[in-house]
Amino acid sequence: MPDLAHNLQERPVTRWKLVLAYDGTDYSGWQVQPGKPTIQQVLMDAVQNITGETVLPQGSGRTDAGVHAQGQVVSLDLQAAIPAENLMRALNRVLPPAIRVRSAQTMPATFHARANAASKTYAYRIFLRRPHADEERVCPPERARFVWDCPYPLDLASMQTAAAAVLGTHDFTSFAAFDPDRAARMQKKENGPSNLRTIFRSAWEQREDELIYTVNGSGFLHHMVRNLVGTFAEIGTGRFSATAIPEILAARDRSSAGITAPPQGLSLVEVFYNPDAQREESE
Amino acid sequence: MPDLAHNLQERPVTRWKLVLAYDGTDYSGWQVQPGKPTIQQVLMDAVQNITGETVLPQGSGRTDAGVHAQGQVVSLDLQAAIPAENLMRALNRVLPPAIRVRSAQTMPATFHARANAASKTYAYRIFLRRPHADEERVCPPERARFVWDCPYPLDLASMQTAAAAVLGTHDFTSFAAFDPDRAARMQKKENGPSNLRTIFRSAWEQREDELIYTVNGSGFLHHMVRNLVGTFAEIGTGRFSATAIPEILAARDRSSAGITAPPQGLSLVEVFYNPDAQREESE
Repeated sequence: MPDLAHNLQERPVTRWKLVLAYDGTDYSGWQVQPGKPTIQQVLMDAVQNITGETVLPQGSGRTDAGVHAQGQVVSLDLQAAIPAENLMRALNRVLPPAIRVRSAQTMPATFHARANAASKTYAYRIFLRRPHADEERVCPPERARFVWDCPYPLDLASMQTAAAAVLGTHDFTSFAAFDPDRAARMQKKENGPSNLRTIFRSAWEQREDELIYTVNGSGFLHHMVRNLVGTFAEIGTGRFSATAIPEILAARDRSSAGITAPPQGLSLVEVFYNPDAQREESE
Repeated sequence: MPDLAHNLQERPVTRWKLVLAYDGTDYSGWQVQPGKPTIQQVLMDAVQNITGETVLPQGSGRTDAGVHAQGQVVSLDLQAAIPAENLMRALNRVLPPAIRVRSAQTMPATFHARANAASKTYAYRIFLRRPHADEERVCPPERARFVWDCPYPLDLASMQTAAAAVLGTHDFTSFAAFDPDRAARMQKKENGPSNLRTIFRSAWEQREDELIYTVNGSGFLHHMVRNLVGTFAEIGTGRFSATAIPEILAARDRSSAGITAPPQGLSLVEVFYNPDAQREESE
């Protein structure tokens, strides 16, 4: 896809950083797809509506259909000279309530939301329909779009042990959506794409009637957080052992890990940038 | 509309009381309307799916399009002999996550969710986009379906004064959606419908970045809570005086009151029944 957002244009442009929150339930994910409602498309349309400029906003990464964001970061170039507060307010007037611009600021021309991202934090929420084996609760409709309403009792201690086992740098092939093209490229080229990722934080905690997983890492493969959560959940039910993670990682095989947790529990919480990164060349 | 739910049937029937919670955003209100998605229709379909029985569940009252419930009460008759816990679980398996059965219990045959209701509690949530005149915040998408994202600063103290002024028994014509048929019937007949209602609780409170109105009353006219909230909000902005309520009530004229607050802030929280009422003859 051409880098429309960062094309050189005749009039001077300003590079913007927007932070977005969205309820992804009714969208087919972040990335533009013909004939489907996506966050990127709706934002693009809103920018065009306000400025008359056609630019493709660059996200820090894709979010899948049904996945939410509290802090998706977007970069885009605008010719229009407009104060940050006015841009934010104008966008929020045009965008649906499910998509909000939380902040807008101008940046050096080298800032790129995806290329410069140093790490990202995701959160995954599980509603405890069965806090114990002998009790069943009902997930409030107000939360249904933002949690996995999990019908099984889950053992938090086992899940915490498992979550700690992915800390550090590992090959996460076992937790990536299987992609034959990517696998072929990885086999062919020595300098091809790598499935090595570094996880800086990985922990479960209980907040009232929810279990919440927070993970911060250098980057994430496709479906990686949902595959981790699905596997942790199957450790929580006892299907896998709490100490199974090192073996699953070593297998480098998607089929060795657990299920893919449903999208609605997942939210991109925050994207972090090195203070210097904004002055580096973007990709 | 015929009272399908309470028809005499050949096989013995059990009268059920269900308590429902729902996210009303994507529904055209409680009451069945041809060709539109309604809560009553979806519940009727779920009951039919499970039991094979066609019954029209009776709600404690209608909720308008976009209005939510945490405690809508429903009565219906079933021939199927099924334990309460199984009925609840089976319904929740068939219903969408936006509609949940919170409880199910069998009742005496005289129990009627609407006719026996002694009082109802509604809550209305306003998100304070401008907690002060010089500050603007963004309504999180996660809450957008459940609050009025109000763009104006509001004076809580004035709104509290105004809310207290509707306590007790009043003619609430000024706060009812104007209905020419009903007005004509009220003029013609001495014993026609009355717009007298008794309010037992009416108060605003601030919880973090929201103002929440809680009202409990013997009954509510169409749009009454939303018209009260709209008027209180216009008192909060200073368009009306904090002491305007007695005059507005005395006018018995919809045009004397403020705007109708949008539906999404409103939720039917709880319906109360006298312990005796279940043994009285239903309407």
